Amino acid sequence: MGRLVMKFGGTSVADIARIRNVARHVEREVKAGHHVAVVVSAMSGTTDRLVGWCREAAAVHDAREYDAVVASGEQVTAGLLAIVLQDLGIPARSWQGWQIPLKTDGVHGAARIAGIDGDEIRKRMDQGQVAVIAGFQGIGPDRRITTLGRGGSDTSAVAIAAALDAACDIYTDVDGVYTADPRIVTGAQKLDRISYEEMLEQASLGAKVLQTRSVELAMVYKVPLQVRSSFEAPDAPNQNKPDGTGPGTLVCDEERIVEQHVVSGVAYSRDEAKVSVRRVKDQPGVSAAIFGPLAEADISVDMIVQNISADGAFTDITFTVARKDLRKALEVLNAVKSKVGFDDLAHSADVAKVSIVGIGMRSHAGVAAKMFKALAEKGINIQAITTSEIKTSVLIDEAYTELAVRALHTAYGLDAKVA
Amino acid sequence: MGRLVMKFGGTSVADIARIRNVARHVEREVKAGHHVAVVVSAMSGTTDRLVGWCREAAAVHDAREYDAVVASGEQVTAGLLAIVLQDLGIPARSWQGWQIPLKTDGVHGAARIAGIDGDEIRKRMDQGQVAVIAGFQGIGPDRRITTLGRGGSDTSAVAIAAALDAACDIYTDVDGVYTADPRIVTGAQKLDRISYEEMLEQASLGAKVLQTRSVELAMVYKVPLQVRSSFEAPDAPNQNKPDGTGPGTLVCDEERIVEQHVVSGVAYSRDEAKVSVRRVKDQPGVSAAIFGPLAEADISVDMIVQNISADGAFTDITFTVARKDLRKALEVLNAVKSKVGFDDLAHSADVAKVSIVGIGMRSHAGVAAKMFKALAEKGINIQAITTSEIKTSVLIDEAYTELAVRALHTAYGLDAKVA
Repeated sequence: MGRLVMKFGGTSVADIARIRNVARHVEREVKAGHHVAVVVSAMSGTTDRLVGWCREAAAVHDAREYDAVVASGEQVTAGLLAIVLQDLGIPARSWQGWQIPLKTDGVHGAARIAGIDGDEIRKRMDQGQVAVIAGFQGIGPDRRITTLGRGGSDTSAVAIAAALDAACDIYTDVDGVYTADPRIVTGAQKLDRISYEEMLEQASLGAKVLQTRSVELAMVYKVPLQVRSSFEAPDAPNQNKPDGTGPGTLVCDEERIVEQHVVSGVAYSRDEAKVSVRRVKDQPGVSAAIFGPLAEADISVDMIVQNISADGAFTDITFTVARKDLRKALEVLNAVKSKVGFDDLAHSADVAKVSIVGIGMRSHAGVAAKMFKALAEKGINIQAITTSEIKTSVLIDEAYTELAVRALHTAYGLDAKVA
Repeated sequence: MGRLVMKFGGTSVADIARIRNVARHVEREVKAGHHVAVVVSAMSGTTDRLVGWCREAAAVHDAREYDAVVASGEQVTAGLLAIVLQDLGIPARSWQGWQIPLKTDGVHGAARIAGIDGDEIRKRMDQGQVAVIAGFQGIGPDRRITTLGRGGSDTSAVAIAAALDAACDIYTDVDGVYTADPRIVTGAQKLDRISYEEMLEQASLGAKVLQTRSVELAMVYKVPLQVRSSFEAPDAPNQNKPDGTGPGTLVCDEERIVEQHVVSGVAYSRDEAKVSVRRVKDQPGVSAAIFGPLAEADISVDMIVQNISADGAFTDITFTVARKDLRKALEVLNAVKSKVGFDDLAHSADVAKVSIVGIGMRSHAGVAAKMFKALAEKGINIQAITTSEIKTSVLIDEAYTELAVRALHTAYGLDAKVA
């Protein structure tokens, strides 16, 4: 057996009883012969409390000090898990970012990993000592603690797996990646495998199973990544299947996915808001005049639709932003109204984005057409469309979200067969 | 003005409002021209919570992991205070033990400081940057976090002051060192100065103003140490007196104490329990047979009284231990009963130790005699006596504690004159 990195998030380590549960998952893998490193997040609630204190201390605060405060949460979990593992008779040692060292750039609060010196940890792992690593953190060029931004523990885990030439199991509160949200689609099926590219689209569409950055890293370094549940019985035998997949969903190269679906999943996001800029001049530079100030205000724009100009003089431009950015976007645009020259702004937060994802879309024609047809049959109006190589997204009235997801899940043949 | 180390304990940094109060104390000293380092404890309650988690994780746990977990409390306070100081426009930077580095030996949980590299901090302080230092912690020879044991932040502060050639102000919830506990003795007076030796006796007698180890260090390295209140108005002007003392009590060399009292304070401790070993053989080796096993069980014995043997064959031996150790002491002795050979054990927790402390005792005869007379006049029976060069302690019935303290305070002329 080789090296294995196991990653557990905040809810999986919320208290000592759950940390003990995590330790039993680790014990199972150690007994199976793996050389294990565990990456842990802060106990759930801890990071929010620490962030709250920083904000109370000063609304605008030094990111270096913020990092020193916030990184303490993972430090605590790592020490506690090491204690529990030792109590089970498993040699273990906690590691903070600066002790490894996990080197990052100097962008405090959202640092990127620059390099990991895995020699010491690898040596100890190969001697049978479990390395319990504080996720989410590293050390910057100035010997100050850095953090990788919220959710960065997934990224830590994958980067460490890459440095250790290890596989990486991400334990979460779901038991894998599904063809759709099982709370909405009763026939949703767990995927045995999904490609890095598809997972990346899912992550950037707001499916919260994995952080986008961690999937990117896994793809670049070819880290075999598994999403599995931390709430399954830890003493269940390893349910690895003959085809190399485990109890969860394996995220891997598409060549390793034998039976490819054209569409592997239907995703949705309610975190959308729509803004329409009415009657702007249909001339070069107007898009830059609108989207430049939004970009400067750090507002990400997703879908953009520009109407065909009826009179050749004026047009409407509609786009979507994250719901939390709606108010700010309106402020920014009103401030440049005279410069851009538009009549008025319309906006709505009652919209949702529904997407189909699948690497099969690259080689199959008519995939998007089937989507539009399925939605039309349910009387669902499409307000905007964006596409990428392996994804098609539509913006619809939020009230139709569940209906749309279910219709598409059926249309692409993803529903589980009823026995 | 020179360098100044300011130390604030857990109750002084219990929440952001109090941390802001601490920042204003720092601001005052910075404006007065001092180059300041601040040493902080964990927010009150934090360390207990972290220690509780370690115990819940495993009753017996690795001290290295305990240190990694528990040291996070001071890390948080240091970051938060740095943020608040920056918000006041004061350049500040937090420092953890490993960043300084503050090197210790490898005795995790109760490490001793081995050396402090103060170069980087001194350079930055002299450029006007306040160093906010996480107390209580250092880094061991194996590059693991170590802690100095409970209350170790006082020790950190004094050691850092010694390394930086700085004075050290310890901020606490009292405004100085008193001739007696003001809650008991209404006429108790705040001392302007007290010698290191006297302070050391007070600390080891259980007066919780300063940690014993910090006073030892201050004495060895001649660090001028002031005990003062963190709850006084931070914007009050520096009330330094012409004789070099400040608003609190200065702990210093006895040569600097001009007007010496014979006795500078009356202390008491209720944390006492008495054990009597009845009818042991009056022969060589019997003390070793009793106190050896107690020492092995890590029980500190304080006062010891051996009766004069009436018949030359048997005697009684009485000693005191901390109240928390009483049950364990009785167990240890009962286990060796047949080996030691005694009739039975008597014990009592209804005892208190009352002490007088003063460097003047060295050069004045009859100081202890005056103590015994004052207690006799109040009808207080003395159960045991111990003395050192500058201290005399007696063990009495606990019910007489306040009466004894007040009587001694009056007998040695320490009562404040009523206007």
